[in-house]
Amino acid sequence: MFIEKVASPGLAHLSYVIGDGGEATVVDPRRDVDIYLDVARREDVRITRIFETHRNEDYVIGSCDLARRTGAAIHHGGALDFEYGSAVSEGDTFEFGSVLLSVLETPGHTDESISLVLADTSFGEDPVAVFTGDALFVGDVGRTDFFPDRAEEVAGLLYDSIHDKILPLGDDVILYPAHGAGSVCGDAMADREFSTLGYERRHNPALQTNGRHAFIQRKIDEIHYYPPYFRRMEELNLNGAPPLDGLPVPAPVDPDEFAEARDDGMQVVDVRSPEAFAGAFVPGSLALPLDMVPAYGGYFLSYDRPIGLVAEDPAQVETAVRSLIRMDYDNVCCVLRGGMHRWETSGHEFDRIGRVSPAELWEQIDKGEDFTLLDVRKENEFQSRRLEEATFVFLGHLPDKLDDIPRGNPVTTFCGSGRRAIIAASFLKMNGFEDVGDTLGSLAACRKIGCPLVGDDAD
Amino acid sequence: MFIEKVASPGLAHLSYVIGDGGEATVVDPRRDVDIYLDVARREDVRITRIFETHRNEDYVIGSCDLARRTGAAIHHGGALDFEYGSAVSEGDTFEFGSVLLSVLETPGHTDESISLVLADTSFGEDPVAVFTGDALFVGDVGRTDFFPDRAEEVAGLLYDSIHDKILPLGDDVILYPAHGAGSVCGDAMADREFSTLGYERRHNPALQTNGRHAFIQRKIDEIHYYPPYFRRMEELNLNGAPPLDGLPVPAPVDPDEFAEARDDGMQVVDVRSPEAFAGAFVPGSLALPLDMVPAYGGYFLSYDRPIGLVAEDPAQVETAVRSLIRMDYDNVCCVLRGGMHRWETSGHEFDRIGRVSPAELWEQIDKGEDFTLLDVRKENEFQSRRLEEATFVFLGHLPDKLDDIPRGNPVTTFCGSGRRAIIAASFLKMNGFEDVGDTLGSLAACRKIGCPLVGDDAD
Amino acid sequence: MFIEKVASPGLAHLSYVIGDGGEATVVDPRRDVDIYLDVARREDVRITRIFETHRNEDYVIGSCDLARRTGAAIHHGGALDFEYGSAVSEGDTFEFGSVLLSVLETPGHTDESISLVLADTSFGEDPVAVFTGDALFVGDVGRTDFFPDRAEEVAGLLYDSIHDKILPLGDDVILYPAHGAGSVCGDAMADREFSTLGYERRHNPALQTNGRHAFIQRKIDEIHYYPPYFRRMEELNLNGAPPLDGLPVPAPVDPDEFAEARDDGMQVVDVRSPEAFAGAFVPGSLALPLDMVPAYGGYFLSYDRPIGLVAEDPAQVETAVRSLIRMDYDNVCCVLRGGMHRWETSGHEFDRIGRVSPAELWEQIDKGEDFTLLDVRKENEFQSRRLEEATFVFLGHLPDKLDDIPRGNPVTTFCGSGRRAIIAASFLKMNGFEDVGDTLGSLAACRKIGCPLVGDDAD
Amino acid sequence: MFIEKVASPGLAHLSYVIGDGGEATVVDPRRDVDIYLDVARREDVRITRIFETHRNEDYVIGSCDLARRTGAAIHHGGALDFEYGSAVSEGDTFEFGSVLLSVLETPGHTDESISLVLADTSFGEDPVAVFTGDALFVGDVGRTDFFPDRAEEVAGLLYDSIHDKILPLGDDVILYPAHGAGSVCGDAMADREFSTLGYERRHNPALQTNGRHAFIQRKIDEIHYYPPYFRRMEELNLNGAPPLDGLPVPAPVDPDEFAEARDDGMQVVDVRSPEAFAGAFVPGSLALPLDMVPAYGGYFLSYDRPIGLVAEDPAQVETAVRSLIRMDYDNVCCVLRGGMHRWETSGHEFDRIGRVSPAELWEQIDKGEDFTLLDVRKENEFQSRRLEEATFVFLGHLPDKLDDIPRGNPVTTFCGSGRRAIIAASFLKMNGFEDVGDTLGSLAACRKIGCPLVGDDAD
Repeated sequence: MFIEKVASPGLAHLSYVIGDGGEATVVDPRRDVDIYLDVARREDVRITRIFETHRNEDYVIGSCDLARRTGAAIHHGGALDFEYGSAVSEGDTFEFGSVLLSVLETPGHTDESISLVLADTSFGEDPVAVFTGDALFVGDVGRTDFFPDRAEEVAGLLYDSIHDKILPLGDDVILYPAHGAGSVCGDAMADREFSTLGYERRHNPALQTNGRHAFIQRKIDEIHYYPPYFRRMEELNLNGAPPLDGLPVPAPVDPDEFAEARDDGMQVVDVRSPEAFAGAFVPGSLALPLDMVPAYGGYFLSYDRPIGLVAEDPAQVETAVRSLIRMDYDNVCCVLRGGMHRWETSGHEFDRIGRVSPAELWEQIDKGEDFTLLDVRKENEFQSRRLEEATFVFLGHLPDKLDDIPRGNPVTTFCGSGRRAIIAASFLKMNGFEDVGDTLGSLAACRKIGCPLVGDDAD
Repeated sequence: MFIEKVASPGLAHLSYVIGDGGEATVVDPRRDVDIYLDVARREDVRITRIFETHRNEDYVIGSCDLARRTGAAIHHGGALDFEYGSAVSEGDTFEFGSVLLSVLETPGHTDESISLVLADTSFGEDPVAVFTGDALFVGDVGRTDFFPDRAEEVAGLLYDSIHDKILPLGDDVILYPAHGAGSVCGDAMADREFSTLGYERRHNPALQTNGRHAFIQRKIDEIHYYPPYFRRMEELNLNGAPPLDGLPVPAPVDPDEFAEARDDGMQVVDVRSPEAFAGAFVPGSLALPLDMVPAYGGYFLSYDRPIGLVAEDPAQVETAVRSLIRMDYDNVCCVLRGGMHRWETSGHEFDRIGRVSPAELWEQIDKGEDFTLLDVRKENEFQSRRLEEATFVFLGHLPDKLDDIPRGNPVTTFCGSGRRAIIAASFLKMNGFEDVGDTLGSLAACRKIGCPLVGDDAD
Repeated sequence: MFIEKVASPGLAHLSYVIGDGGEATVVDPRRDVDIYLDVARREDVRITRIFETHRNEDYVIGSCDLARRTGAAIHHGGALDFEYGSAVSEGDTFEFGSVLLSVLETPGHTDESISLVLADTSFGEDPVAVFTGDALFVGDVGRTDFFPDRAEEVAGLLYDSIHDKILPLGDDVILYPAHGAGSVCGDAMADREFSTLGYERRHNPALQTNGRHAFIQRKIDEIHYYPPYFRRMEELNLNGAPPLDGLPVPAPVDPDEFAEARDDGMQVVDVRSPEAFAGAFVPGSLALPLDMVPAYGGYFLSYDRPIGLVAEDPAQVETAVRSLIRMDYDNVCCVLRGGMHRWETSGHEFDRIGRVSPAELWEQIDKGEDFTLLDVRKENEFQSRRLEEATFVFLGHLPDKLDDIPRGNPVTTFCGSGRRAIIAASFLKMNGFEDVGDTLGSLAACRKIGCPLVGDDAD
Repeated sequence: MFIEKVASPGLAHLSYVIGDGGEATVVDPRRDVDIYLDVARREDVRITRIFETHRNEDYVIGSCDLARRTGAAIHHGGALDFEYGSAVSEGDTFEFGSVLLSVLETPGHTDESISLVLADTSFGEDPVAVFTGDALFVGDVGRTDFFPDRAEEVAGLLYDSIHDKILPLGDDVILYPAHGAGSVCGDAMADREFSTLGYERRHNPALQTNGRHAFIQRKIDEIHYYPPYFRRMEELNLNGAPPLDGLPVPAPVDPDEFAEARDDGMQVVDVRSPEAFAGAFVPGSLALPLDMVPAYGGYFLSYDRPIGLVAEDPAQVETAVRSLIRMDYDNVCCVLRGGMHRWETSGHEFDRIGRVSPAELWEQIDKGEDFTLLDVRKENEFQSRRLEEATFVFLGHLPDKLDDIPRGNPVTTFCGSGRRAIIAASFLKMNGFEDVGDTLGSLAACRKIGCPLVGDDAD
């Protein structure tokens, strides 16, 4: 019996292949399903079932494609009216080899959320592991902000699912959640991907509240963001995503053709590092450092216009394409051949972003220089610790709040480390702001060098 | 400027990616086109053109799928009415980067055959290489047996194509043919994949004949075989093959299920080595050692019944699937999970083939034992050297000539090395012959140990 | 924080890389250490410490080579006088990133055995996982037969280590043992590689005994085997293995040269499948199906004579070489070029093994045919269920017990599935037995088809 | 028979594995010899011979390590007194399979230079290919500047070697040289890696001179550079390089430790792109964009001080390490963990380089701004086309000519594309120049946008 975890970085999405006796079940497959076929081939198992722990909102689930390739059946919870697959209910069981999977209905994150309990029948029917989807994570629990009208109700449902269904399985049960640290589906997940129900019961901060009421209050007080692409994911995952006919093959095009496409409306996405982007970029580009595509692409990218990539190498291109199609951005049409170097040597003008160190930033503030310090972190981060002079606009809201930022003045962007700041800086550049700098190091460096901070957790 | 050769073993098919200046042309792509996309990604080029040197008869050409993935244009010769792509004519040129490709019409193997001449314009317009399709190989020339009614005419056309079009390009031109040693499209190709026109002019045995007439006679005298699947390839390659939606994923199934499928008509193909097959096999299997699938599968396999595989490991399964889909056998439904070992431990009966060494064979002959020695090589091989007692049936003709082989008597199969003999042996077993042995080593070993041989070239 | 399990199949050895904060610790590295360097590079961590949970007896530990490549410190328990590294004691702690490792002294399997307890300091000091070496496995506990004079004492030590040290860490602690199913270091490990202390406490058969005394009695009653190579491993692992200067590169040699080397004393090891070996083999070969090299090579192979391999393909050769050097067999000098096929075509005589199906076997028994049925399983397997007519010699003891097997008579070898039986059959052939057959399927198939069995667990 | 080309980018070094009949010969192996072992394993051949076409000056040849791993014999020309291997002479032949290799003594580049002529004996003894080392390249011939006192003589020797030995082999012979485009061992090699003697005879610019005298004059007039590390290569390649015990494993270290090591004398090499370096870098770093390490590392790096790397990802680190050890820089001790991002967030100050576009540069010149425009190309490039205002210092001579560059003034570096300029810019920064910019695009872009140029080839 094996459990193979398949992680999709960026999304911090975790899917699983559970195999035994020549069969396998996949839990929450991603859209580019080749990896599950590889695992199955290597392990000599046939994928016969696919479970969706819930209707996902942050990525296109790969169930339909995987079913098409393998003939597997698709199952999900019954509280939503899916256009494909079949519904399972509390207590339903599925057996193959020595694996016994039982369904727990664990609503809260969404109504149709289920968990899957794994027993090894060669040792009895006691649970040895549980796949909790977005109900319980290592170090956190799932979001409950998707139904603002039912905020209290669904937070309570999640409390009950965890306390009445999942934790009673036993302290010794291993936890396999659907996300790891960095996911937009939770806030405080541990940077550790192994845990047990007992460990979480005693150490998960979200489970240390004083009773159901406090838990609900805590959930209601959380601030979450809802990227616009979620809506599309929800639809696709309800109706069944259309087949993905191989990964898109973006054509490498010369600078002239690339520039022309951009001028005709192509979205230029630059996945290089913040330093490289700041060094030189194609005017009109959006900076989306490679590993941030999943978390922030959905705030800035349109499904209606083609996407052209700027990258350092073919490996970056492939990663970018995979990240994008997982969000249904199949419209990646081309990549700048030869990268920035070729753009530069072809005589095209390039643009730049200033790089400010926290020490320099502090000096500018100290001297009373006139500029906008734009902090684009999440609201809770901003409340916790910030430079007093900072203006707050959450990065994802920048498209709607450009008017709040004074034009004419220099702008220095700021975040936790300088990475979200480069996205913001590039977006300001795209929108006509001329003098834009990124605070490389941002808050992390400010704390190291002792800049004075204000906020709830400032010393 | 680069030329990357993509070889498909078994078929001994050679395709090429020619790239420069951010663009690439593919010559004669195979059906599983992922490899060309990989090369293009790595080399940062866009595939913009696909050339078919001729309508291939031995494999499904991948042009349509590759065009669909990349947007490339497809070109072929004009003497056939293709349902897709566009025709090119003598003298047409195509330029990208420093590559200049010019079309030569080189009929003979087929009427619409073309060759592509490559010049490096940064050094002038002199040819540096030529892609000759099935006109000229290293050490041989193409078959001209596809039009029996026009035998003399087409052999003459080939002579003219080679002598009036290709060789005049110059001795110093590098040769890139569509097949290497082992292909069914030629007989005597060199086991060396690099050559020049000058070297071939002076050393290619087929070009050493005394003039046009002798060349034609030589071609007419050649014996070639025409596997039944060729007809299907010709149709697909004329009309355009339907898209291949990912490689088939054969399901690993347990022995019981495998046996049941076999009993319901599934063709069982065992791709293990002859020794392993002889050791134990699933009754009713056809032995097709992995690298012989392309050369002999087309004689024995039906498109109408599903195929189940027996293999040693997942790598063999993948190779088998790729070999089969290149011949349009997309009907690979399953693979015996756990291989023969699992079949045996599950209590299913297995069958065996006897293994006779040449010394033992000779001893049996010497003693006058009563058995059929069945030599399944090609006719020219048989004529060249053979054991006097041998009965000749070409392996590919065995399905039609079973009645020529006396039942009741033991049969010992024989070929060049024992590999074709195992296919024959398995086929006899499938058809009710009970006492069947394979001469491992066959003719090669007979010669080493000095068995008395007869035939045109026997010493 | 990550834990990456590195499994070495065959040995069923599990080693671990624990990383966080840019540092990593390796637990029980194998000898070919490239894989740990790969993990470290990919995860951007520096390997700073290596722990040996005990002086291993079944493989050469890679600590010294890994330390040489990385500068890492080596630690082991203090109850043995190692020539390298440094001793740690109960309660010693090691911290990096959020990882806190604490040492538990857990003697029993060996005196110097230690376990490592892992806490995630970002969540407190409670243990979240434990690396138990050969003390506690999933579904079993470690062997305690290495000190026959102290049998009771060491079994008791193990009981105390598990009950007083390991289990009290808590039900919710994840278990990371040094071996998985198939290891010679335990007998009944689960075919499942994930578990917790709570699950083991309640389900591990070895922990369900009625108290300390019963546990000791159970351990004393166990039958274990001690392959001769263990002695060498123990010495190397005490003194520190000499550097491995890259993997040996066995030269592909032609049949003539291979035969000559064999005649000069080279040990021929054939790692192909039992079916392929039975089909045809180089006379004088030992059959060691690839995945059985670690478990049985040490009973049959000498360190003093070179080893020549017969394999199906280069991947098998590499796996064989890795398996052998893990047991300090660096003396792999060559591989038969072109495999058996080339041997056969070169005119060399080959040998064969008969393949008997259980039904045929039963028929022979039923008819009262005169032959030796040689069952080479472990004694406990033999006691549990067997064919009444079987003669018992444990496979590993065959070299010493050849005289117990009557010559002249046919011998049919038998085991659980036919795989150990092929090793035995080849060994008999090497030693002059002429008529030897292997029962493919062996006991597993006998049970399926309902052969009458005797023994403690026979129905 | 196969020839497998192994290219080492950066060095533009080409080595070859020639295999047939189970044996292989390697020509000019690089120092990290694992790739030859991989080819040999895959092709089932034993490497029995290694040829060095000459004592290489630009990299450590891997002969000794490869011989140690395989038992192969090493051969080189006799005109130099090597401490290892054995000398071969004109006409010596070596045969394996159908391969016949014959030695041609082809001095000129060096006295002991040899070429290897390949015949396929199954087609006769006519040559089909020739391995010319550094005598004849595609589009160029070897350098003859290594013996300044014998300039005329050695250029004449090369002329004779090419005209009297190599070209007479025949127009139809395929050319396999030791370097491709980009090598420091020639100047004008074609960006095409396939050619024949006939094509070169008619198109290689170096062979179009009017007779021997003109050839010699042309060679004498060439300008070549001699990086200081060549001396060390020559010594190692004469005496035999010591074994490379696996690739160095640079430890990922935190910014504090990295900074401390730098302050203690560690050389910091930043292999990221020019844009990324310009964006932000560790003060005191040398920029060496990854693919330029081989060509320029040897001018700037010391063998006596450790090297610490800054890179984007682990793949870059491995490439850098391989490039460095090929030049005997085994002293790579560490890599900045987490790259620049981590440096920035840890609060360490970073530095920047200005990025000037050619248009901006021209505007500055036009306005008469006061700055040094430093052109670091090779002298012949500078003579050919330049901006009139440029100061010339060849990049490799910068360490010796720092005093020629006025301090205090801003410096804008310039080269062919902006890549060599970033190395120069970083070196100036290391040496206290404060205001330094890189002209991204440099001459290539200047030409595209029509900046006025002067020089021999300016329009």
